[in-house]
Amino acid sequence: MIAEILSVGTELLLGDIIDTNAAYLARMLSRLGIASYYRTTVGDNPVRMAAALTLALSRSDVIITIGGLGPTMDDLTKEMVAESLGAALIEDAHHASWLRERYRMRGLMMPPESVLRQAQIPSQGRGIANPNGTALGAIFEINDKVAICLPGPPNELIPMAEQTVEPYLRDATSGEPLAIESRTLRIVGMGETLVEENVRDLMLADNPTVAPYAKPAEVHLRVTARAESDSAASALIAPVAQQIRERLGDAVYGTDTQTLEEIVVRMLESHGMTLAVAESCSGGLIAKRLTDVPDASHVFSLSLVTYSNEAKSRYLNIPAALIESVGAVSSEVARAMAEGARSAAIADLGVSVTGIAGPGGGTPAKPVGTVHVGLAWEGGSVSEHYEFLGSRTDIAYRASQAALAMVRSHLLRHGNK
Amino acid sequence: MIAEILSVGTELLLGDIIDTNAAYLARMLSRLGIASYYRTTVGDNPVRMAAALTLALSRSDVIITIGGLGPTMDDLTKEMVAESLGAALIEDAHHASWLRERYRMRGLMMPPESVLRQAQIPSQGRGIANPNGTALGAIFEINDKVAICLPGPPNELIPMAEQTVEPYLRDATSGEPLAIESRTLRIVGMGETLVEENVRDLMLADNPTVAPYAKPAEVHLRVTARAESDSAASALIAPVAQQIRERLGDAVYGTDTQTLEEIVVRMLESHGMTLAVAESCSGGLIAKRLTDVPDASHVFSLSLVTYSNEAKSRYLNIPAALIESVGAVSSEVARAMAEGARSAAIADLGVSVTGIAGPGGGTPAKPVGTVHVGLAWEGGSVSEHYEFLGSRTDIAYRASQAALAMVRSHLLRHGNK
Repeated sequence: MIAEILSVGTELLLGDIIDTNAAYLARMLSRLGIASYYRTTVGDNPVRMAAALTLALSRSDVIITIGGLGPTMDDLTKEMVAESLGAALIEDAHHASWLRERYRMRGLMMPPESVLRQAQIPSQGRGIANPNGTALGAIFEINDKVAICLPGPPNELIPMAEQTVEPYLRDATSGEPLAIESRTLRIVGMGETLVEENVRDLMLADNPTVAPYAKPAEVHLRVTARAESDSAASALIAPVAQQIRERLGDAVYGTDTQTLEEIVVRMLESHGMTLAVAESCSGGLIAKRLTDVPDASHVFSLSLVTYSNEAKSRYLNIPAALIESVGAVSSEVARAMAEGARSAAIADLGVSVTGIAGPGGGTPAKPVGTVHVGLAWEGGSVSEHYEFLGSRTDIAYRASQAALAMVRSHLLRHGNK
Repeated sequence: MIAEILSVGTELLLGDIIDTNAAYLARMLSRLGIASYYRTTVGDNPVRMAAALTLALSRSDVIITIGGLGPTMDDLTKEMVAESLGAALIEDAHHASWLRERYRMRGLMMPPESVLRQAQIPSQGRGIANPNGTALGAIFEINDKVAICLPGPPNELIPMAEQTVEPYLRDATSGEPLAIESRTLRIVGMGETLVEENVRDLMLADNPTVAPYAKPAEVHLRVTARAESDSAASALIAPVAQQIRERLGDAVYGTDTQTLEEIVVRMLESHGMTLAVAESCSGGLIAKRLTDVPDASHVFSLSLVTYSNEAKSRYLNIPAALIESVGAVSSEVARAMAEGARSAAIADLGVSVTGIAGPGGGTPAKPVGTVHVGLAWEGGSVSEHYEFLGSRTDIAYRASQAALAMVRSHLLRHGNK
């Protein structure tokens, strides 16, 4: 079964509204294992709506329209769908009398025809109750095609989709393989290109599918399987996920919704170790990310945000002469900052970031995006040099990601120290 | 000139991502006075991308694609656009050497071919610099058609659109009438149907256009004109806006971004009057909306949120016998609450809300959505009875809107008391 979402509304074409409804319904279709290959947005124009409906009906089994069910004259969707399908509309007597009653209650006369249009339902198919609004939805069933009409306001659309459309489509697809399961493998420290080179053959398979997603400072690989049941789908995923882990090694840091900061906090906990942070261009972001993890206070003892060279010297005990000779944005200072943070907090590990987040402050030798990340432990220290692309926010985020990844790598190799 | 936005990405069809880029570009086109009649979303599939591109090129002059410019094998957009247009791609030597340099800097060998694809630009047309990423954008100019390719990450797309695409399209449309101006009239206390009945003839006109938008508990009418200049467009809008005001009277409460709470605060200020509030089912929302207005503290003195009957009796001085005889959700209690709030705060006006916001608590006689709004002034009080539809949040919002509208109506009629 192939479904297609058609969003109707000039305000969508003008960009006045972001189409969250379409994404909501797309997730519902994906959950049901129903494929969707195109999505179209069209204005409140009868000629163009007819063209879009005809095209959608030619290539999909189920059309879901969003919007255009209200009482005004540019609300045309139900009528246009009926016309495209050669279907008839009839009045739902119960809903029509409810609409009339609402009018009477307000001391108004009979509602105009345009209001009663909201009570129309397909003669072949059914209406969809709308607990939060006045317009009924519709399910047309004619000539092996299904067209489902939903209203535009999300507070009306979502309960109608949950209460009526999802159970309806679940029934309609029963007999087809229904379960669809996904697992996301989260990868840090390896670019999208290199990830893909390692798993290209797996990406060519149909079931499970493997798809890469470039996320801020990390890459996700999503493995998705369809089968007769959830457990059968999971069984298809497991060996593919295992292969990916073997090929990418430690670059896979977590699965599904696990974040890098969560992994780092849990690793520190399991090793009984504490971490201190010294941040310059990441401006407190490492501390923010760590403290977003519940119970991080057990393992994260201190963050010093030291923008100025004076603060670096004073709070991290870095010789002013060192900063003068090599510059604050340097491998040496990154290591000294990590050591300084570790000493100040009496922590097991210290991690640091120093860099140029821009937009100003870059030089040919040290352009915007230059970042040094330092790590110190009992008896040693190390630093890494990056040149990140992006805005100030991007660079700060990438720096925080590199610092957390460095702590994780150290714990993987030397966790018992 | 007609433009069309084509979003590319399976993750969009799956609903994993909400397409904010398309809305951003739609607003840009609207600002430039460029019409857009359709928008399409398609997955990373060459056959379906080709179909979508062919269709878009058959009906629009300018195509803007979003996504699919990266280095992985499902990033196909630039190649597919070139194929659909019969255009050739060449390598931007400067960008290619920059990509090679980035690889060398990381101690890696030569970048693979897939990475260098990001340096390709049209032989007829130009590249688009990408300050925040590695993939160049592209502008194809061939056979009277223009195709613009932008990357999917918003932090890359937005600066490229601002710095290159918007100036490019502004130049391309010079000579055409360019200025587009809008004014929104904000209407309260009159439903969408009734508003439309009053302005139906104006909605049939082409320039300015008049379009209704149903918003939470209010209706907006947007008047939009195109002309050679901003001032010419504004001159087209003014008489239409004036006609709407004459027809709808006091129901038009403000324009553009003015909110009802802002209007109420400014009216109270200009009359030198103060307002107290007693809220039950709106749970503090009236107070929240009023205090969102700068300087509201001069005119808004107190809000009492009284959920329980005991609190209503105690803080608003409402006889328990009254609540027992007519119920807390009643016209009489609404008026007594408004009077109680006014007395407690020694304010000029008191406004109140009592109702059943649901989901529980409804009865056949007083269903969920039943709300009474009360208003008290020196020497009198009045109440209004509503039956609102929607969720708990909707009902609370509609109640707050009705209360603010009631204060406004009173000030319009009796502002000097």
